[in-house]
Amino acid sequence: MILLLVPVVYSAQAQDPVQETVNRIFEQSLIHQQAYENLRVLTSQTAGRISGTAAAAAAVELTRQMLLDLKPDTVWLQPVMVPRWVRGSREQARIISAKYGDIPVQVTALGTSPGTAEAGISARVVEVKSLKELEALGRKGVEGKIVFFNRPMDPLKINTFAAYGGAVDQRSRGPALAARFGAVAAVVRSMTTRLDDVPHTGATRFDDQLIPAAAISTLGAEKLHLLLSRDPGLKFYLKMNCRNEPEVLSYNVVSEIRGSEFPGQIITVGGHLDAWDTGEGAHDDGAGCVQAIEMIRIFRTLGLKPRHTLRAVMFMDEEISQSGGKAYADSALHHGEKHVLAFESDRGGFLPRGVGVNASNPQIQEKLLALVRYFEPWNIREFSPGGGGTDIGPLRSQGTIMSGLIPDSQRYFDVHHSASDVIGAVNPRELQLGAATMAAFIWLADQMDLEEE
Amino acid sequence: MILLLVPVVYSAQAQDPVQETVNRIFEQSLIHQQAYENLRVLTSQTAGRISGTAAAAAAVELTRQMLLDLKPDTVWLQPVMVPRWVRGSREQARIISAKYGDIPVQVTALGTSPGTAEAGISARVVEVKSLKELEALGRKGVEGKIVFFNRPMDPLKINTFAAYGGAVDQRSRGPALAARFGAVAAVVRSMTTRLDDVPHTGATRFDDQLIPAAAISTLGAEKLHLLLSRDPGLKFYLKMNCRNEPEVLSYNVVSEIRGSEFPGQIITVGGHLDAWDTGEGAHDDGAGCVQAIEMIRIFRTLGLKPRHTLRAVMFMDEEISQSGGKAYADSALHHGEKHVLAFESDRGGFLPRGVGVNASNPQIQEKLLALVRYFEPWNIREFSPGGGGTDIGPLRSQGTIMSGLIPDSQRYFDVHHSASDVIGAVNPRELQLGAATMAAFIWLADQMDLEEE
Repeated sequence: MILLLVPVVYSAQAQDPVQETVNRIFEQSLIHQQAYENLRVLTSQTAGRISGTAAAAAAVELTRQMLLDLKPDTVWLQPVMVPRWVRGSREQARIISAKYGDIPVQVTALGTSPGTAEAGISARVVEVKSLKELEALGRKGVEGKIVFFNRPMDPLKINTFAAYGGAVDQRSRGPALAARFGAVAAVVRSMTTRLDDVPHTGATRFDDQLIPAAAISTLGAEKLHLLLSRDPGLKFYLKMNCRNEPEVLSYNVVSEIRGSEFPGQIITVGGHLDAWDTGEGAHDDGAGCVQAIEMIRIFRTLGLKPRHTLRAVMFMDEEISQSGGKAYADSALHHGEKHVLAFESDRGGFLPRGVGVNASNPQIQEKLLALVRYFEPWNIREFSPGGGGTDIGPLRSQGTIMSGLIPDSQRYFDVHHSASDVIGAVNPRELQLGAATMAAFIWLADQMDLEEE
Repeated sequence: MILLLVPVVYSAQAQDPVQETVNRIFEQSLIHQQAYENLRVLTSQTAGRISGTAAAAAAVELTRQMLLDLKPDTVWLQPVMVPRWVRGSREQARIISAKYGDIPVQVTALGTSPGTAEAGISARVVEVKSLKELEALGRKGVEGKIVFFNRPMDPLKINTFAAYGGAVDQRSRGPALAARFGAVAAVVRSMTTRLDDVPHTGATRFDDQLIPAAAISTLGAEKLHLLLSRDPGLKFYLKMNCRNEPEVLSYNVVSEIRGSEFPGQIITVGGHLDAWDTGEGAHDDGAGCVQAIEMIRIFRTLGLKPRHTLRAVMFMDEEISQSGGKAYADSALHHGEKHVLAFESDRGGFLPRGVGVNASNPQIQEKLLALVRYFEPWNIREFSPGGGGTDIGPLRSQGTIMSGLIPDSQRYFDVHHSASDVIGAVNPRELQLGAATMAAFIWLADQMDLEEE
């Protein structure tokens, strides 16, 4: 296009000092873009930082330094024992058909999966669309075979997290069920609406019995489905040497600005530092970490003094066993800390559309939702009930208000848990608008009385 | 992140047949993703399709075939004479400093710029932030020098089109003014808020006198600015062999479904087919073209019969002289056609946030804006006054209602007119949601009485 004259959406409303501070937060974020710069460093230096790895340890030290540089009151490491799962060398898989020959497909081992035998395994395939369908087949239909879970994410759900929620049981619980019925391996269609050759990993939860489990790219799943319909006797070959190792010591990174009026009441803001090793963990969840750090930077740079104690937390091990979030909540309980509000960003560094709020006290809930008016000049209009995140979830039972950033969801599952989750998929303005939304929401909430009881 | 339970935003409202049809349009678009597939073909086969090129002619034929395949009532080519500007071989530029040595920088010739002498030119540089500042310098400060326009786009405008509008006079009119004051060349900071090494081209409009004019990457601009402050006597070297050639015959591609009730009243929907040769023209404006084609496909597939005559138009030459839009409007006048409504998509294939509407009749305006209620289940909530586009603009004086797609603007100027405007920067769901918004809006508007007089 060429020049179009468009009315400026942002109107200063310089009269209202509250709006003025919100605007200064957004301006600070958009001009300096430090969250993006931090994400560039984090992704380039700590790619592969799934819990228990050297890369994860490097991410702990890197973000600790980033936080120390901002000179909050304190920065410390909170110990947490985390699972260690090692992918090993690159997975190999192919369809072996007497009619069509050998056809290689792209797969990636699921987190916590064991490897195959050294030579790989090869078996006939049974395709199912659901766990229910697998149960109906029972041991007779499954034993000795590879179970192929192939129900796509529903492309008609405008909220792609709902589509994910409607399909991910295949990945999280499918392999365990397949194992119970005697399957020798499980292959799961990648959790994305994209049709491409990039497999998406993620954790699976076994019961007693472990079998090799992998995600197959959506194009690979389509191929396998088509060839099965033409040659039901084909075999699938899978070779992986991933393995579970004993758990190791790691850390949540915690930074704190002490509250001026209610130092005993804590507001915790965070994302998770671990990320799948398939990509750089740029959106999931490097974004949430650097946004929380950016909030601290903005408070410090603008001289905003929180009334409640404000923490930015980089949680460890969200992806495999959520031990970081549990350890944080356990420690809070153990030390008699009162968390009044927690906020999480773990839906990618995309365009923020709003904030989700989940408070038990209806007056507080209403007041927090009404804060949306300060965000409208920045075209952020959707504050809604509900919200939180996996890492802060364990605080809920301590009477903590849950809240979280709601970015637009259309692009998230293009990159989620895959080789596509890289810094190049992040737009600096979108990331910074998310950081500003977080910082402004927390600054506004901090002005309120947040004790629910 | 792992599984989060999120309420489904989309609720069927199956009772309302109007809402039901809107939903079927969105579903058709999201399931089949034909606009994305067409964009993939268009970008891979016709990259470099600036007006007057073989690639532009190929794009005419390709989209004509795409439209013919959909079997509308008619598809035809509307002749239009277009400018022909040839970039020639890759531009070369460097900063030549006695103190710092030779420093290469990335530039791209501006459309309609002449080339330099065969050996290139080299001259001292005068940096300005505005045309006003250049005028204040006058001939004395400018003659024999290269003028460097270096006012950035304002990162604080949440609507990036407003930021573009606030900076682009440097590109569109700066070189002409520099030429008037005797400058030997002009170098303009690229129109983007990204700090990177990708220059962004675009047209410039000269008066009588032409001088070589190029865009420099934002990183290059920062370098030049810094070195000028330390070594004001440095020289800038520029070599380009672009040239203007005589205009050539090209075409708008027009397809039509004849109206069942008001065949003499026309609704025209389109984008522009030409695109800068630096990239693939994926967002600007391949997206608008394939969305218009998708609208025809959706009407045909769902058996929707428009009451007014419905056209999808691929306009030629929006980027250089807007001759396609003018020829289309002239032809309408000449043939006594009555255009009741025109709709353009030329702000990229990004997440649609709403539709802009510009009708003279306040009742019609209000009714069109009220259509937003049918889009809310798809999280599209921002219908606003104003809107249209460069190609349909010339119809305005014929009493045509102007309207246009409003995608989110945060990412547009990352890619606009640059090597980054490629299919990989397009998300299929965002593109298809835009196409569905267009098709649904047009279907709804077609149910109304649209004659303004």
